[in-house]
Amino acid sequence: MSDKPFSFAPQGKSDQVEEGRLLAPKFDANGLVTCVVIDVWSGEVLMVAHMNAEALAKTIETAEAWYYSRSREKLWRKGEQSGRTQRVVEMRVDCDQDAVLLRVEQAEPGACHTGRRSCFYRTVPLKRKLTRSFLLEFKDDEKLFDPAKVYKTPDKPST
Amino acid sequence: MSDKPFSFAPQGKSDQVEEGRLLAPKFDANGLVTCVVIDVWSGEVLMVAHMNAEALAKTIETAEAWYYSRSREKLWRKGEQSGRTQRVVEMRVDCDQDAVLLRVEQAEPGACHTGRRSCFYRTVPLKRKLTRSFLLEFKDDEKLFDPAKVYKTPDKPST
Repeated sequence: MSDKPFSFAPQGKSDQVEEGRLLAPKFDANGLVTCVVIDVWSGEVLMVAHMNAEALAKTIETAEAWYYSRSREKLWRKGEQSGRTQRVVEMRVDCDQDAVLLRVEQAEPGACHTGRRSCFYRTVPLKRKLTRSFLLEFKDDEKLFDPAKVYKTPDKPST
Repeated sequence: MSDKPFSFAPQGKSDQVEEGRLLAPKFDANGLVTCVVIDVWSGEVLMVAHMNAEALAKTIETAEAWYYSRSREKLWRKGEQSGRTQRVVEMRVDCDQDAVLLRVEQAEPGACHTGRRSCFYRTVPLKRKLTRSFLLEFKDDEKLFDPAKVYKTPDKPST
């Protein structure tokens, strides 16, 4: 597997990037764009992940979600271990083309590697004085699967 | 204005970060977390931005959206130029605490500095062969305001 199977168009001027039709992603210093993933049926934000050029190219060509794992430093097909793959129904890109939005259909619910539907299962209380022991509130945190049974690698698994 | 008005708790072990109640954000090498912003009424993804510790602290304490502009390298109160401020109705944090989700009420619609409701006004066609001249499709791209009239700084304005 080569490092750069496909090279996207370089970014032109700001006006072209924002008002033009050419796909010219703005990869960061680590070669990544941010990816927001939405459940196509519920509209819920499931997770935030990252894509390198290869993951972005594979996702466009296959309409299956591929990401780049920063912790494991490798390309990662979503669901490769858990079976919880994501079929991409729609992909969008933002104004400066450094973020993409995926509307996906999960093969099975449970996008988060902790076993939950979404990675955003805790709220941050607002209008409170901050302290170093500031506490979150669990919400929508039901576990749909047991990560210990699903993953071979216990820490930072590939979901 | 000091660089570090408040210091969040450091991250403990993965299990504590993911299953505990302590807010311990994982700032990246540039001191930032990713922030996904949703319209509380429509559920639409409006934008993706970044927060440093100060922006995160101010947002929690005020329930008004503050971000950190990477291009302008400064703290930025959303709407400071355009008047399109964001009242934060709910904030969530993800499993590894390197991304936050805001549900906001826009003071006026038009979260994108290009004048559009959302920054995600172009789709990326799927299951197509990639070329370096790959074209996007405009969708939901109506301009709600004229950026030239709203911003003093024409390029990379503070929305």
